[in-house]
Amino acid sequence: MENVIPWVNSISLLATTTEVDPSMVLAGVILSLVVIYLASKIGGEVSHSLGLPPVLGELVGGVVVGVSVFHLLVFAEGGVDASNSIVIQILQATAGLSSEASQSTFQVQSEVISVLSELGVILLLFEVGLESNLKELLAAGVQATLVAIVGVVVPFALGTVGLMTLFHVSAIPAIFAGAALTATSIGITSKVLSELGRLSSKEGQIILGAAVIDDVLGIIVLAVVASLAKTGEVDVNNIIYLIISSTVFLVGAIFLGNFFNKTFVKAADFLQTRGQLVIPALIFALILAYIGNAIHLEAILGAFAAGLVLDETDKRKELETQITPICDVLVPIFFVSVGARTDLSVLNPAIPANREGLIIAVFLVVVAIFGKVVTGATLWGPEKLNRLAIGVGMIPRGEVGLVFAGIGASSGALSSPLQAAIIVMVILTTFLAPLFLRIVFKDDPSTEVIETP
Amino acid sequence: MENVIPWVNSISLLATTTEVDPSMVLAGVILSLVVIYLASKIGGEVSHSLGLPPVLGELVGGVVVGVSVFHLLVFAEGGVDASNSIVIQILQATAGLSSEASQSTFQVQSEVISVLSELGVILLLFEVGLESNLKELLAAGVQATLVAIVGVVVPFALGTVGLMTLFHVSAIPAIFAGAALTATSIGITSKVLSELGRLSSKEGQIILGAAVIDDVLGIIVLAVVASLAKTGEVDVNNIIYLIISSTVFLVGAIFLGNFFNKTFVKAADFLQTRGQLVIPALIFALILAYIGNAIHLEAILGAFAAGLVLDETDKRKELETQITPICDVLVPIFFVSVGARTDLSVLNPAIPANREGLIIAVFLVVVAIFGKVVTGATLWGPEKLNRLAIGVGMIPRGEVGLVFAGIGASSGALSSPLQAAIIVMVILTTFLAPLFLRIVFKDDPSTEVIETP
Repeated sequence: MENVIPWVNSISLLATTTEVDPSMVLAGVILSLVVIYLASKIGGEVSHSLGLPPVLGELVGGVVVGVSVFHLLVFAEGGVDASNSIVIQILQATAGLSSEASQSTFQVQSEVISVLSELGVILLLFEVGLESNLKELLAAGVQATLVAIVGVVVPFALGTVGLMTLFHVSAIPAIFAGAALTATSIGITSKVLSELGRLSSKEGQIILGAAVIDDVLGIIVLAVVASLAKTGEVDVNNIIYLIISSTVFLVGAIFLGNFFNKTFVKAADFLQTRGQLVIPALIFALILAYIGNAIHLEAILGAFAAGLVLDETDKRKELETQITPICDVLVPIFFVSVGARTDLSVLNPAIPANREGLIIAVFLVVVAIFGKVVTGATLWGPEKLNRLAIGVGMIPRGEVGLVFAGIGASSGALSSPLQAAIIVMVILTTFLAPLFLRIVFKDDPSTEVIETP
Repeated sequence: MENVIPWVNSISLLATTTEVDPSMVLAGVILSLVVIYLASKIGGEVSHSLGLPPVLGELVGGVVVGVSVFHLLVFAEGGVDASNSIVIQILQATAGLSSEASQSTFQVQSEVISVLSELGVILLLFEVGLESNLKELLAAGVQATLVAIVGVVVPFALGTVGLMTLFHVSAIPAIFAGAALTATSIGITSKVLSELGRLSSKEGQIILGAAVIDDVLGIIVLAVVASLAKTGEVDVNNIIYLIISSTVFLVGAIFLGNFFNKTFVKAADFLQTRGQLVIPALIFALILAYIGNAIHLEAILGAFAAGLVLDETDKRKELETQITPICDVLVPIFFVSVGARTDLSVLNPAIPANREGLIIAVFLVVVAIFGKVVTGATLWGPEKLNRLAIGVGMIPRGEVGLVFAGIGASSGALSSPLQAAIIVMVILTTFLAPLFLRIVFKDDPSTEVIETP
């Protein structure tokens, strides 16, 4: 609904914003959850029956119900409005949603699903932390740090220089695309590792450790690049602030952990009413997630740290049992949402405008894979390690890569083809890594693939 | 921030609405959840240690953190703005939330917590349905229907006539207040019954059955009264539509249930990936909840019906075990939110404007309690029943009563003192019923109080 008089347009938007009917929002959220759970279960089962990780099927299920195909699950972002959402159309047809209230209902419903998806990834990382062993993770520290640093420097340098020399992209967009290449999605990787039964293997611990460090390094890179894109200058204070806060946060969480462990066990033993274990654990995880968010790191880092800390208590087994169904309900919202947000129409080579982006995309995908695979090779020493698996485990950009693409797009630094190319790179690395990871672990005769239930 | 030029004010509001930072909303939701879980656990434990039901403590915990006392958990409703929310102030102080973005962040965060609270009550009713036995509930049918009808007619008639004759309230507001007296909160009642270990007792089943019927009757009464308030005329078509749809829905859900049961068990056995039991169950519950919502009944009725149906399968035990931690996480959001929304400042007798409301409130509370307690006495026959307990179990108005008060307020039919009086009646009945219920069941020597874990 275009309106040439901006004042009147604003008024009508304002009116709809204030008139959101909570029962319509709830109906929209309920329908969206039905779509998400159907997509995740059908996708996950099909993927599993083909011998692929369920998480890949959940992502593809998300793509199918999302903006690329059926428009059942779409988000109020990037100019998408209520008329693109089949859920909103169903609400209009069956629940009596008025067309005036559609846009505001769509926006609020979309925001609620986004937050649920964020809570899903927070719980996923909490569960991953619970399943990880702090001592083993610290033991993997030097190697993980090396993998992380190489996995940030190589893709960043190759991507930025390649785009500037081969494709004559100017400096700031080239640096932004290079930065997007540095990300590693700990969510995707850890889910796949868990499904392969490799989370606690030496390789798994190095990948996880490197992905955590990579997250911290990636956020620093993102902050620097975003300020570069805005001002043309690197903000030294911000870099220093981010480096200090991330270090203090991680060391602080582990230190606090040893102190908090005993308090947590005492509290869980003292409490008499329902939820006596899971609620104190969630309070702890949410507080660390909030601190992580507030100091401009990521909420998921805090949740991961909380899981690591509580893994050290003798309540671990019981807590894991209770967290599992909560994760089963919340985590699929995250994976399906990542798939649903991904617009695969930018892959269509029939549209001429996509071709420049496709060529750049091929280049970015090659750099993205090579730049991470090479990290395993840098691990020296006689230790028997599946070095290829470590490199492959760092490939998926997932939601972290999508954050880079999103911030790049909103800063206006990226041209439309370059932005499309970054998204294609994120999609392909995310979709290919679970396949590759499964292959390289299957070729490894020293270990056997164990399915988690 | 008042602005005398409406156009400019609208533009600035529009700008902030479109500029919501999702990470700030997430931070606000995380902080709100920490507040909710602390309030529910501390309140619930204190209440339990005093020998009272934990749900009462969760409600009081909500009042303490809510709009009445600490303003930690407040909702963007009824003119409350971001400056009233301590969570928003914490975000401004610690997470760098700008004051321009505060109002829109507050609104979206508030809406997310509201939806989570609604999902909480949906899951609560699903769990209650799982714990209820359809055959026993149907066996209690005639008695439950009688209790429900008497419990709607007596408070409605006494309240409406009393307000018109004793307090000279005009017809439409008096009818609205009378309608608010008819509600029964199945959420509060079933939680208390569950805590007392009386959910499956004959009395418990009559109360639950009556509360379900009461919900249906109450929504019909509400629809009629709301259309009365709007138009001054009773909409016969709407009444017929509501009566037909509610009947079809309940009978249909039970009929569908016998058919769906086998499909559900087969699906759960066929699925191989995580969440194979809880996700199909949730899909079923959410679809019924959506249908309940779409046909202008309540989503919670659909969830309750889904629980009843799945209770008849041999997966019941396993499903209950997995639903329990999900409920432990979501249900407290509902109870704390109900408490937090309740503004106890309308009880302050020092403010002269409250006095008229207080006198009407005393009248409404007396009618509310008498009108429901009398329902048990109408059950004839020699059967050994705790008739007082049945009447007392129908007393709490809870969230259903708050819906009446909210719709009455937004329709403009209620004067400010009358509105305050209805809210006080809702608060007192909700707070007193668990105490009364515990007393009348304790005085009953034929049974023993069993604590649920």
